Amino acid sequence: MEPGILAASLFDELAEATRDDVGITRASYGEGEAFAHGAVARAARTLGLEVETDPACNTYMTLPGSDRAAPPVIIGSHLDSVAEGGNFDGAAGVVAGLAAIASLQESRTTPGRDIRVMGIRAEESAWFGTSYIGSRAALGALAPGALETARRADTGRTLAEHIRAAGGDPDALDRPFLEAACLHAFLEIHIEQGPVLVEQDLPVGVVTGIRGNRRLPAARCLGAYSHCGGMPRRSRQDAVMAVTDLIARLDRLWDECEATGRDFAFTVGKLSTDPERHAMTIVPGECSFSLDMRSLDGAFLDDLEDRVAEAARQIETRRGVTFELGAATRAAPGVLDESIRAGLLDCARSLDIPHNEMASGASHDSAAFAAAGVPTAMLFVRNPHGSHNPDEAMELDDFMAAVNILTRWLATEGARE
Amino acid sequence: MEPGILAASLFDELAEATRDDVGITRASYGEGEAFAHGAVARAARTLGLEVETDPACNTYMTLPGSDRAAPPVIIGSHLDSVAEGGNFDGAAGVVAGLAAIASLQESRTTPGRDIRVMGIRAEESAWFGTSYIGSRAALGALAPGALETARRADTGRTLAEHIRAAGGDPDALDRPFLEAACLHAFLEIHIEQGPVLVEQDLPVGVVTGIRGNRRLPAARCLGAYSHCGGMPRRSRQDAVMAVTDLIARLDRLWDECEATGRDFAFTVGKLSTDPERHAMTIVPGECSFSLDMRSLDGAFLDDLEDRVAEAARQIETRRGVTFELGAATRAAPGVLDESIRAGLLDCARSLDIPHNEMASGASHDSAAFAAAGVPTAMLFVRNPHGSHNPDEAMELDDFMAAVNILTRWLATEGARE
Repeated sequence: MEPGILAASLFDELAEATRDDVGITRASYGEGEAFAHGAVARAARTLGLEVETDPACNTYMTLPGSDRAAPPVIIGSHLDSVAEGGNFDGAAGVVAGLAAIASLQESRTTPGRDIRVMGIRAEESAWFGTSYIGSRAALGALAPGALETARRADTGRTLAEHIRAAGGDPDALDRPFLEAACLHAFLEIHIEQGPVLVEQDLPVGVVTGIRGNRRLPAARCLGAYSHCGGMPRRSRQDAVMAVTDLIARLDRLWDECEATGRDFAFTVGKLSTDPERHAMTIVPGECSFSLDMRSLDGAFLDDLEDRVAEAARQIETRRGVTFELGAATRAAPGVLDESIRAGLLDCARSLDIPHNEMASGASHDSAAFAAAGVPTAMLFVRNPHGSHNPDEAMELDDFMAAVNILTRWLATEGARE
Repeated sequence: MEPGILAASLFDELAEATRDDVGITRASYGEGEAFAHGAVARAARTLGLEVETDPACNTYMTLPGSDRAAPPVIIGSHLDSVAEGGNFDGAAGVVAGLAAIASLQESRTTPGRDIRVMGIRAEESAWFGTSYIGSRAALGALAPGALETARRADTGRTLAEHIRAAGGDPDALDRPFLEAACLHAFLEIHIEQGPVLVEQDLPVGVVTGIRGNRRLPAARCLGAYSHCGGMPRRSRQDAVMAVTDLIARLDRLWDECEATGRDFAFTVGKLSTDPERHAMTIVPGECSFSLDMRSLDGAFLDDLEDRVAEAARQIETRRGVTFELGAATRAAPGVLDESIRAGLLDCARSLDIPHNEMASGASHDSAAFAAAGVPTAMLFVRNPHGSHNPDEAMELDDFMAAVNILTRWLATEGARE
């Protein structure tokens, strides 16, 4: 099938079936995600591919190579979405794999090794509070205990229950389905989730690395409620001022990092005094917040938790408050493979496709494969309006430019025997 | 009746009848407040006082003076409380008036002018979002429109509806019940709402002035939600960072004020990202907050709204956000009468009662009387654990020390013909 038509019809089918009132919802291990796995599997069978699933319900769609014993290339991304999100975040990478295979078939190219398109489960942390569940499960790298402790935000049911309900086998996830050492490469095409390619007027970016993160999902600061007029400044224990101090310190750290060229970003996405107790004229005795910190620099990330804890201690002394930072979650930076990156750049140049090289600020399944030691690379596709919202607006032409780079790479470097 | 016994039994009666599971609740124009007005009126009748109410349901309990045509002295405070508050914030000032009259009666002193104890309605801004409702209504100084626009936080009903339900007449509130020019003085005894008298080990404070305020009850900052990894720093429109900037600027202003000896305090008691849309990994596109700013310096207060607006404009430019500061509420500083203050100090000295002179950080009905031009003064009573909570812990001995100062003043300066 003509690759562009295949892609367009798959995107349409996914959007139609998983549209809610606002945008697209494909919950991790939910209905919309299951539909998407079925849809790509049907398309894969039309292309004559072998289709199988693993105990975590990831879907594998394989074009056999001339040497079936050679380590395969995996082209993958996730098929879940955030609630009321867009159609392309994740799904584009799976559709890209199928389109690249259709393109190889059109040119009657038989690759030297198997090419497996992987539809991955449960990448979005919005559902279970943790990222890369499908990738990590396939690689035998799920966080210990996650099957029982991670619960889906909307249902309250455990990850194990959801995997079982989706037809998977959580008991089999203590061992890898994919042996990292037996994979030739992992490649992922994903929409850019920021405005860089739009600003630079480029269809495609070759990703240099993926930021790791340290996160405090549920931190809080405890002070003491008191009358805001009667309590002198020196005796206040103001939780809002203390959290403000911490945020301002992280903002200065960001300034320093920018000045010295070190990659860093932080976000306090959730922030709140206690609606049960707060009032305009009462010094706030409690303030809850989340903290997401990212960097390409693993050693810097390793230091960040200590830096935050030390800043919190200093502010505690100054403000008479107590920080309860809670359990941190961690993801290492995704170090991408230089040789594959160079190969992708060569392909882009030979195809005359304008492109840049840029880091990924967002997290991706690729980071899980890179962390497992699989040679990994990513391409970004231009996408106005960001992601995780219904306004994702990737153009098919830009998408096909990335598919063409991928196809060229598979036909040359990637699938060489 | 012995003044100390009268006071103790009234405090007990109020606490028993208006106790909830946590503390004391006497909602403005609610059940607990109505009970308190009834209780003090019954005690006043036992003392043989004249009892009347005004269209705002304030209660007046009058000991006739020898010259009934002379401008009266009013001893007053409020009988409402915050939800789950304490027994003494407000009520102590009404009980103090009755105890002082009992004391005058014990010594068979007939004052030269009427002494009226005023049980005031609806001082706490927690209920209707605005302060001094009873005082202002009695003085004909309610904010225009407040009867219809102010709604009680728990019931949603308008102030006019609540006044009518309590037996008052909102239609009569367009004219003063008390002519400010026809009042000799207004005196208020109130628990201190901070730790100063406890720290200084003093039972009583003579108040030098009452802070005015400028308040933004419902301000917010609007930015743009975006992916926290994908969006570069320069393109972020982060509402939390913008509000943090504003708070940090106000904190620096407070530093400057402390360094130059200018009175100032501010509090962000309520702060929140939007629980419907916020997430750990999304740049926050909205942040709501309240702001309470106080000072004894009226000219400085007049400048503060402009300063905040200017700071907001600068932050808007830097952070790509929009502030919607909302309607401000304003209360002028309460300038207290020098001659009455000097008289109270004389009385304290002659009674050998240890005392200090201190400003009131909190707002009080006294500020409404001072603003109307009535010669006004206040005494604070030591009270551990602050106010607006169930732990208010005023000792009866400290209270009676203040009552004795008041009684001495009434018997000498205050009620002179």
